[in-house]
Amino acid sequence: MYQDFKLVEGRPAYVQVKEYLKRMIMKSVLQPHQKLPSTRELSELMSVSRNTIISAYLGLEEEGLVYTVKGKGSYIAQITASAAAPSWRLDWQERMNEQARMAEAMDLMKHGIRAERGTISFTSIAPNEKLFDLGNVKRAFLDRMAVEGEVLLNYGYAKGYKPLIDLLKQYMEQKGVDLAGKDLLITNGFTEGLDLVLSSLTKRSGAVICENPTHHTAIKNLRLHGYEITGIGMERDGIDLEQLEQALRRQSFDCAYLVPSYHNPTGIVMSPEKRLELMKLLTRYQVPVIEDGFNEELRYSGSHVSPLIAAVGQGNGVIYLGSFSKVLFPGLRVGWVLADQELIYYLESLKRARSIHTSTLDQSILYQYLLNGNLDKYLRKARTEYKRKYEWTKQCCEAYLPYNRLTGDGGLHLFVSFSEGADTRQLLEICKQRGVIFTPGDIFHTDGTGQHTMRLGFSRVSDEDIEAGIRIIGEAAREMFTQT
Amino acid sequence: MYQDFKLVEGRPAYVQVKEYLKRMIMKSVLQPHQKLPSTRELSELMSVSRNTIISAYLGLEEEGLVYTVKGKGSYIAQITASAAAPSWRLDWQERMNEQARMAEAMDLMKHGIRAERGTISFTSIAPNEKLFDLGNVKRAFLDRMAVEGEVLLNYGYAKGYKPLIDLLKQYMEQKGVDLAGKDLLITNGFTEGLDLVLSSLTKRSGAVICENPTHHTAIKNLRLHGYEITGIGMERDGIDLEQLEQALRRQSFDCAYLVPSYHNPTGIVMSPEKRLELMKLLTRYQVPVIEDGFNEELRYSGSHVSPLIAAVGQGNGVIYLGSFSKVLFPGLRVGWVLADQELIYYLESLKRARSIHTSTLDQSILYQYLLNGNLDKYLRKARTEYKRKYEWTKQCCEAYLPYNRLTGDGGLHLFVSFSEGADTRQLLEICKQRGVIFTPGDIFHTDGTGQHTMRLGFSRVSDEDIEAGIRIIGEAAREMFTQT
Repeated sequence: MYQDFKLVEGRPAYVQVKEYLKRMIMKSVLQPHQKLPSTRELSELMSVSRNTIISAYLGLEEEGLVYTVKGKGSYIAQITASAAAPSWRLDWQERMNEQARMAEAMDLMKHGIRAERGTISFTSIAPNEKLFDLGNVKRAFLDRMAVEGEVLLNYGYAKGYKPLIDLLKQYMEQKGVDLAGKDLLITNGFTEGLDLVLSSLTKRSGAVICENPTHHTAIKNLRLHGYEITGIGMERDGIDLEQLEQALRRQSFDCAYLVPSYHNPTGIVMSPEKRLELMKLLTRYQVPVIEDGFNEELRYSGSHVSPLIAAVGQGNGVIYLGSFSKVLFPGLRVGWVLADQELIYYLESLKRARSIHTSTLDQSILYQYLLNGNLDKYLRKARTEYKRKYEWTKQCCEAYLPYNRLTGDGGLHLFVSFSEGADTRQLLEICKQRGVIFTPGDIFHTDGTGQHTMRLGFSRVSDEDIEAGIRIIGEAAREMFTQT
Repeated sequence: MYQDFKLVEGRPAYVQVKEYLKRMIMKSVLQPHQKLPSTRELSELMSVSRNTIISAYLGLEEEGLVYTVKGKGSYIAQITASAAAPSWRLDWQERMNEQARMAEAMDLMKHGIRAERGTISFTSIAPNEKLFDLGNVKRAFLDRMAVEGEVLLNYGYAKGYKPLIDLLKQYMEQKGVDLAGKDLLITNGFTEGLDLVLSSLTKRSGAVICENPTHHTAIKNLRLHGYEITGIGMERDGIDLEQLEQALRRQSFDCAYLVPSYHNPTGIVMSPEKRLELMKLLTRYQVPVIEDGFNEELRYSGSHVSPLIAAVGQGNGVIYLGSFSKVLFPGLRVGWVLADQELIYYLESLKRARSIHTSTLDQSILYQYLLNGNLDKYLRKARTEYKRKYEWTKQCCEAYLPYNRLTGDGGLHLFVSFSEGADTRQLLEICKQRGVIFTPGDIFHTDGTGQHTMRLGFSRVSDEDIEAGIRIIGEAAREMFTQT
């Protein structure tokens, strides 16, 4: 004992000594009322300074693990023995409810495609971390800590960090939103926002309408909340309005979930005209909208498009879910819900019940980063880089892939449809063996179709790998789809 | 127009000019195809440099709000008109389900006691922010950003930040926990952990057992999840085991929710002997435990106590919910669930579905802060200060309050019971008028009792105010309770 202690770098020595002794006590290697070596002795045995040992003993005494007898030395205290109660084992899996099982079954991180080392992976649509301006993030942190560090580290409010709420309201106003009668709630990213909204709504028809294909997380969460999903096909400029009207005529829906900009996974930006027609239609049928503001900041070209919530003016039929995750830093878990103030009032209480509030540090860093005017500068840099990559990926697809339809007006991904009958799961198997992976499109479909489609995320793939990867996919596709 | 523009400090000028113009465009003050002033003209009108105007125009052009005709100048683009769709209003309140309504009704921040300026408030049990060691938090942030800033700002994992998971596992092992067959999930504080656990369990009896009184958030969340609550009375050394056994004999329970250390609100630390007997009893009746590790770090004196999860060894019947919120910084929303690995596997997927993952920045700052050995130093400082405050508060209670029972073995609050028949809601009304507020104890009770009790949180009250406040409560209590 003691001589096997090894100091590691980067942590205070006394903490390491204390933890070493604590382990010995917990494992009953050191027994209650056993005398510890003198600080001088132990300092020699463990090859650390005597002060280190003194601090470690003091720490153990503070935790009630050691007691001192004046003039005699330090002794191990009597502690409740671990593992003293009978050890009972139960089958937790058997106790999991349907929601937990479904969450596990639909968990892409567990059942999705895994990249092996060296594989060219088109599965991610997360931003490229090489673009992150760490310097400005650090500055935002230090600026904010200097202003109100104590406030940032203590409890905040469920609704969010007030300066950020105000800034985001302005930001949304500049997108043309009429704020009258509306309010804003900060969430742990888009996903918590969607979950809160779905958790609070009364089920009437229990049916939701959305684009088909659509965001996998949304499909998952709608299903977890027990909704039936009706998917509406996509045209080149967004959702198929005729098909939508047919569905609306056929049955009633509790709400619509829509991604008007850089739609995930097709990458389509809904045209301004279609946005207007869409909102007229949904208003006529009185279907409220959950609008996913996904990546609307990543505009490379074309005309300005306003979010759907801007189109309804003082109407309150649109719930807007915003986030800078994809455009800025996904690690900062900050999103927001902008909606009718009455609705926000309830969502706030639900959020408080579930997680108290969103990290104040994350919120305040984002606030200060935006206040310092970094968003515009960063977006300029990011857009330039992603646009270049987008065009290069498109060019490679056009050169190498035997596709039927290729969509994507920008953003961080393209969507490929091969001819009907093609099977991208099989294609993936072949490509995987050749060192390339992508996301098969079936997981984005609401009706079990889409076997002939795939999504290519390019944000984190190098130019060379984009070409090499797409060439390999193209070759495999030609082999497979001419055989069938 | 233009001359009414006013530059504010702290934000880049071109961002302010851009936002000003954007507002004019969104409000249709500037009309589509209208020519903008030349950069030279506008720079004079708005009293900013010409470069500022050039940058602002460039920004607007990037957003598709302005277009340039070579040799002629800049023009407002045609954008989708805001408020173009018919504005439809719906009654959201009417669409709120029972869960949302209940969360609102039980929201103490909305319906609790509000402190007016100058009031002495004993309602908070949040840490005293004056103790926060901001310097070490800053250092932890900068240290970690230097190591892997890009990683911290990009997506992390639902399970948590790996270095922190490993450190917390070690930390729990040092509390005597046998990690075999167990795993750890990082959550957005204690509250998310509890919500995830309750969200994943199949309801069998639909009944939960807990201490009475107990943590209000737990009562709220158990109710939100539709559980029936059976509260068991508290003795001086923790839950009443006889009463517990009677309840266990009478009916079956899905689980028990327990706060063994610095129990909220009574402040009682369950004795080591009772912990052991409790676990034997619950094992006999096969009731799994949700253990709330609340404040177990805030030990001022007395023997070392191990958490309940340590007592069961390799058994998997205890789900431990941990958090440094109260001892360190509540603003960092980081807690953890330590439990059977099979259970954690499902909780991880549920967490991913609901909020992707906990802020990586928060996690990494906490990790580095712990790694740097700051916890021990901070706890030493905090314990000394809180212990002093605790003893002073106790002394004041003993001097001024006509209580029947006074409990609290440390922590950040004391719990006061007056004689049966006393009404602390009425007492609060009087005290409020005299400038003092506290938390009436009824909200902590599971069965509508506790009208004669109250909680006094002292962590954020000055020594003078502690004495003055308790004296006022005592005077009012004597007046009221002798009248009745």
